[in-house]
Amino acid sequence: MGEKIPHWLDKQAETNPNKTAIRQSDGEIVTFKELRNESRQIAYGLRGLGVRKGTHIALLAENHKEVPAFIHASSYAGAVLVLLNTRLTPAELAFQLEDAEVQFLFTSNSLKGRGEEASQHLPIRQYSLEEIPRDAGESDVEEEFDLDDVYTMMYTSGTTGNPKAVMHTYGNHWHSAISSALNMGLHEEDQWLVCLPLFHVGGFSILMKSVVYGMTIEYMGTFDEKIIQEAIFERGITHVSVVTVMLRRLLDHLGEASYPEHFRCMLLGGGPVPKPLLERAAERRIPVFQTYGMTETSSQIATLDPSSALRKLGSAGRPLSTAQLLVDAEKEYEVGEILVRGPMVSKKYYNREASDEAFFRTGDLGYKDEEGFLYVVDRVKDVIISGGENVYPAEIESVLSSFPGVIEAGVTGIANEKWGEVPAAFLVLEEHTLWNQEEMERFLEDKLAKYKRPHVYHIVPELPRNASNKLVRRRLPSLVEEHKDEC
Amino acid sequence: MGEKIPHWLDKQAETNPNKTAIRQSDGEIVTFKELRNESRQIAYGLRGLGVRKGTHIALLAENHKEVPAFIHASSYAGAVLVLLNTRLTPAELAFQLEDAEVQFLFTSNSLKGRGEEASQHLPIRQYSLEEIPRDAGESDVEEEFDLDDVYTMMYTSGTTGNPKAVMHTYGNHWHSAISSALNMGLHEEDQWLVCLPLFHVGGFSILMKSVVYGMTIEYMGTFDEKIIQEAIFERGITHVSVVTVMLRRLLDHLGEASYPEHFRCMLLGGGPVPKPLLERAAERRIPVFQTYGMTETSSQIATLDPSSALRKLGSAGRPLSTAQLLVDAEKEYEVGEILVRGPMVSKKYYNREASDEAFFRTGDLGYKDEEGFLYVVDRVKDVIISGGENVYPAEIESVLSSFPGVIEAGVTGIANEKWGEVPAAFLVLEEHTLWNQEEMERFLEDKLAKYKRPHVYHIVPELPRNASNKLVRRRLPSLVEEHKDEC
Repeated sequence: MGEKIPHWLDKQAETNPNKTAIRQSDGEIVTFKELRNESRQIAYGLRGLGVRKGTHIALLAENHKEVPAFIHASSYAGAVLVLLNTRLTPAELAFQLEDAEVQFLFTSNSLKGRGEEASQHLPIRQYSLEEIPRDAGESDVEEEFDLDDVYTMMYTSGTTGNPKAVMHTYGNHWHSAISSALNMGLHEEDQWLVCLPLFHVGGFSILMKSVVYGMTIEYMGTFDEKIIQEAIFERGITHVSVVTVMLRRLLDHLGEASYPEHFRCMLLGGGPVPKPLLERAAERRIPVFQTYGMTETSSQIATLDPSSALRKLGSAGRPLSTAQLLVDAEKEYEVGEILVRGPMVSKKYYNREASDEAFFRTGDLGYKDEEGFLYVVDRVKDVIISGGENVYPAEIESVLSSFPGVIEAGVTGIANEKWGEVPAAFLVLEEHTLWNQEEMERFLEDKLAKYKRPHVYHIVPELPRNASNKLVRRRLPSLVEEHKDEC
Repeated sequence: MGEKIPHWLDKQAETNPNKTAIRQSDGEIVTFKELRNESRQIAYGLRGLGVRKGTHIALLAENHKEVPAFIHASSYAGAVLVLLNTRLTPAELAFQLEDAEVQFLFTSNSLKGRGEEASQHLPIRQYSLEEIPRDAGESDVEEEFDLDDVYTMMYTSGTTGNPKAVMHTYGNHWHSAISSALNMGLHEEDQWLVCLPLFHVGGFSILMKSVVYGMTIEYMGTFDEKIIQEAIFERGITHVSVVTVMLRRLLDHLGEASYPEHFRCMLLGGGPVPKPLLERAAERRIPVFQTYGMTETSSQIATLDPSSALRKLGSAGRPLSTAQLLVDAEKEYEVGEILVRGPMVSKKYYNREASDEAFFRTGDLGYKDEEGFLYVVDRVKDVIISGGENVYPAEIESVLSSFPGVIEAGVTGIANEKWGEVPAAFLVLEEHTLWNQEEMERFLEDKLAKYKRPHVYHIVPELPRNASNKLVRRRLPSLVEEHKDEC
């Protein structure tokens, strides 16, 4: 048993009853008191359907209006909430529903059919969010959390093998919110914009911050750079969480303007970022905080703090105040696997043995500089070993994408008699771009050591990505096979 | 076993190496990096003397310069630190040293003699702070905390029976700091002034906030209103923790001036406060946050938040975000014992059975209004029952002290044939004040119901207080006995 804390939404409804909890981008507002009441109504409905403390329920929905209240209702009901990625196929969904032993599936109306297909052979009761009874009358709900109790399960992307369900306790989410506040400070007027899906930990963690801090969030259905800029310039948004491609779109849309003074933080996660992009952001007075984190760490576990943001461009900063982060290497600047530990780190995957190691092995490679700043290099399993040298695809991809006309690049190792492995590049080009390999090779000459330069280039229509939109490098070669078949 | 977090001072030394950790009021500064290095040196010295993880060590010192580093050194050494009140007699100190099974006693130079007297019959090794070797060389120290491990022990005032040692874990102190930040916000430029002794939880908790937040504190030897005003007006202090008598002295010294805009919080603890004083503070733009807390709650557990400070004058606010607070009563406005629960609440007194109740019974009486705001009324055991009515000495004292010429007032119950008990007043008057009981009685007519008005008045030179400077009402009658003997 862990420490007990009162239900965070009850607390905010008591302390800040009339403060806006959630503002939809269309202007609709719900206060903390209204959100508490709505969430409790839904929880009573869940109880009526048979959901009990510890029942596994799943949610399949885009960022719909009803989702935040449903997420809080799950905690009032004491359910374990499995958050499903809406990009998954019915077969993938079925795997997760079965693996997680889900008893109830709740969907948005638009995903009802997909849910039915996924759950058809499983002992699961399915309802749309609208079908949860709202007139069930009061019943006993959970009014405090044991920080050691499991609240959510989210499946990791599973670029290899079957996906695994990361179990998050209330304490994991709470500590994640707290350590972020200790890093960024906490101002009365803070407002965080949610443009990431709530079924990923990056979006979900903002909803948690809202109830832990008593902070207003603006909540968007889908990413829209125009609406985001309006929210920042006109509605007082101080924080936005994004991934690289979103930052690029925001910058393109911004033109020559600069962000207003009140804007405190552009939290940038989801992998290595090209340096030129960070420099462009700095010119536009966008305080980009590069972060490092993953589902298992309940979002960011390391963040580049404001005072070092420009001095350490490209770094993911240092571990948050309650976190520890090691690089499995002998000395500074040496690359090794990144190991983490802290109260925001998930202790276990569902139905798998818990590890008895003190630190969680992330599978990511990185190094620390002499001041302890982390630089994330790549995934362990994506490293190319060429003539005894370690070659990191992410580094090559970053350089390739800065070549005019290249939209995105993927790099993986292919067998080579002399070197063992060599890098192969897969490029997506802008329309009407003429490919000139010689120019690219000249471009790379002073940017990459010889052994890092691709031996072969493939122009492809798109790169293989998983449901979390992450590049799956091991599927790059098959892309060429397919391509060949087509020719 | 609880969650593990890295040593907070190591963390600040890494994140904010050159930020001022502590500024003495004479201008001397120590950065987080310097404080870490100094504290580790002392910890190596403690190890050299034989202090191991779990060893009980005691500190007897005023707010000396060396004390903060010693407190942090104790955590690096993994010791359990017993903080002794410097106002105690050698016999009282001896009781605590023996009861807490202390093995090492560390004192300031000025209290060396008192320490020796206290420990002379005990198996205790005593050193002055200066005698701890600083050249012991590195040794293994604690680099992370288990939040469930005990860090400090502080004896409760013990107005009845023997004092008991409140055991605080690292988690108690950490959660106390966190819940205060969630309540007040956390700004980069925050600076908290310490004018309370570090051996009380009110002062100690500020030192904890400094290392948990990475916040600068200004640290004073003794209370001095002139230096405090300078710190606020000239050195950017944003927060001060005080008790009532200190606030009065600050207001008297302030004259017609108002506090600067950057000043965010005057945290006021230590018992009921006369309303006129709060009104005077409001006029001077002093944001007074009335709080409720005690050693067992690791400082504040309820605080009146900024938005309600004026609307709810006299209230101690609502429980902090991770805390729960109940009044053992049937309905709003009904007085009952205050019960609390939360991760900042100590679980146990040393060498006593842990309570199996979910909530800690504070022994304080209070009520909540319809919005859940707490009003602290008095100590359970000080209540006077007069003709079946509950009479609260604190309420009467508050009115008596607002009478011209009265410096302070103490009220207790005395036996009465007709009513069972009736209130008796003990007043300390300003010099050259002529006592006129009739005027006082007229003054009270519209302020207190008849059954609350004192039946008898005693003018005394001072009120009996314990080592924590709290009024000991049960000793008021003996004061008159002594007084009689003297006559």
